[in-house]
Amino acid sequence: MLNEEPHFSLQAEPQGTRWEAIAADLRVDIVQGVFPPGSRLPNEAALAERFQVNRHTLRHAMQSLAREGFVQVRHGSGTFVRELVLDYALQRRTRMSENLAEAGEQGRRELLSHSEGLAGSLWANRLRLSPRAPVLQMSTRALVRGRPVSLCSAAYPLPRLGAMAQAFARLGSITAALAELGVTDYTRERSVISSRLPNQQEADALARPVTQPVLVVDYCNVDAAGVPVEAGRTLFAADAVQLTVGPDGWERS
Amino acid sequence: MLNEEPHFSLQAEPQGTRWEAIAADLRVDIVQGVFPPGSRLPNEAALAERFQVNRHTLRHAMQSLAREGFVQVRHGSGTFVRELVLDYALQRRTRMSENLAEAGEQGRRELLSHSEGLAGSLWANRLRLSPRAPVLQMSTRALVRGRPVSLCSAAYPLPRLGAMAQAFARLGSITAALAELGVTDYTRERSVISSRLPNQQEADALARPVTQPVLVVDYCNVDAAGVPVEAGRTLFAADAVQLTVGPDGWERS
Repeated sequence: MLNEEPHFSLQAEPQGTRWEAIAADLRVDIVQGVFPPGSRLPNEAALAERFQVNRHTLRHAMQSLAREGFVQVRHGSGTFVRELVLDYALQRRTRMSENLAEAGEQGRRELLSHSEGLAGSLWANRLRLSPRAPVLQMSTRALVRGRPVSLCSAAYPLPRLGAMAQAFARLGSITAALAELGVTDYTRERSVISSRLPNQQEADALARPVTQPVLVVDYCNVDAAGVPVEAGRTLFAADAVQLTVGPDGWERS
Repeated sequence: MLNEEPHFSLQAEPQGTRWEAIAADLRVDIVQGVFPPGSRLPNEAALAERFQVNRHTLRHAMQSLAREGFVQVRHGSGTFVRELVLDYALQRRTRMSENLAEAGEQGRRELLSHSEGLAGSLWANRLRLSPRAPVLQMSTRALVRGRPVSLCSAAYPLPRLGAMAQAFARLGSITAALAELGVTDYTRERSVISSRLPNQQEADALARPVTQPVLVVDYCNVDAAGVPVEAGRTLFAADAVQLTVGPDGWERS
C-alpha cells in the first residue's frame, strides 16, 4: 500500500521549473533538519536573496511546501516547519500502512535486517510456540517525508511464513506480504504501551538524540482462526507519533 | 474505592512484634529508594546483623514483604526489590480506582490543588464548551505503595460539577465523586497517548529524575447522554506504569 503512494524526490528535478527546484531544496533542508520541526524559516527577503529569485517565484515554492504539509504559514509571524505528529490508531485491525495513509503523510517502510532462529523466551510465549520452535525475525523502519518515525522488531512462525522477508522487501507492507503468504486477514490481540529512552543504536536508527523518549508498543497479531502470525515490538519516535485509542476503532472491525 | 483499601504505614509500629518492625523499616527503605526497584537486598547475614535478630525472625519479615509484593525471592540468587509495573487498561470504562485495585496494589489518589477559571483554549474544545465557560480545574496524584505513579490535571464543567473537589477530597476516587454528584456512569470517548520528559515540577511531584520519560494520556469522559463531564491529561511515570489496549476492554462495557 505504502509503495503505491507517490514519494517526494529529495533531489531537485533538473527538468522542473525554478520554483520547483527551490521547493525541492527547501524540502531537503527540512527533512535533514537544517530547519527542524517548529522552527521559523528565514524571511522572504533572505530566501529570495539565497536563491536569487524574485518574491513571486519564492511564494510559489512556499505554497507548494504548505500544500504538501512541510510548512505552515502563520500570518503576522512567518512560515514555520510543521511539527510532524502522526496519529497512530491502535485498534482491532491495526495497520501501519493505513495509519500512514490516513494521516495524509508520505510514508514508506523498509527492511533493515532479517534472520532465522529459535523462538526462545522472547517470542515463544507471545507466538504460543515452544522456545525451540523456529521463527523468522525481521527489523523494519518506517519513514514519513524521508524522516524515520518508527523501528519494529517482529517474529513470524516458520515454516509457515518463511517467505515474509522477501515478500515484505518487495511490497513494503506487512499486510500485503502476509496476504501474499495466505494470511488474508489478521487482528490484534493486545497492545502494551510503555516508554523509555532509546539506546544509542536505536537513537541512531531513528535519527534522534538518546535524550528523546520512544513509545514502546508490544503486540501480537492473530489470523482469522486465532493463530498468532506476528509478535513484535515497535518503537515510535515520541516527537513524531502519538497513539490513539477509542471505542470506534475497536468497534469498526 | 481506593480509600477503602488498607494503607501501609511507613513508620514502624511500636506496638508490633520484632519482625513487623523490621518489615516496616525495610518497607521505608524500599519506598524511599534506598533499595531501588530491581536491586538485590543485602543477604540474610548482613540484615540479621543490622537488625540484631536471628535469621528466623528476619525470614518472617521477608515473607511478609514478599506477600505484600515489595520483594521477590529468586532461589539461588537472593531477594530482589520488585519492579513496580502497573498494567493500566485503557478501555470504554477506564477507571483508575479499578486499575489500581485489579493490579492488586495498595493505591490511593490525593488532591494536590483545585481552582475555578475559564475553559479557555485548553479545555473548551474537549469539553465542548465556549472558551468563556467556567470550569473547575483539579490536580491529583496517584500513589502505589507510597510511591507516586501518576499526576492528573483535569477540568469539570461548572456549575454542574462545582462540588467535585470537595467530593474527591473526601472520597479519594473520581468515579465515586462523580456518582455523588449525579453522574452515575461515564465512558471514555478517546485517549491520545504520547511521551516526553517531565519538567522539573512534574519530576519533583513524581519523585523521579527529569531524565525519566512520562507517558502522557489526554482524554475526555462523557456521561450516559454523551455530554462531556471530564477532560484531562494524566502523566504516568513510565518506569511504573504500562498502558494496555485490547478488544476485551472495549467489548466488556
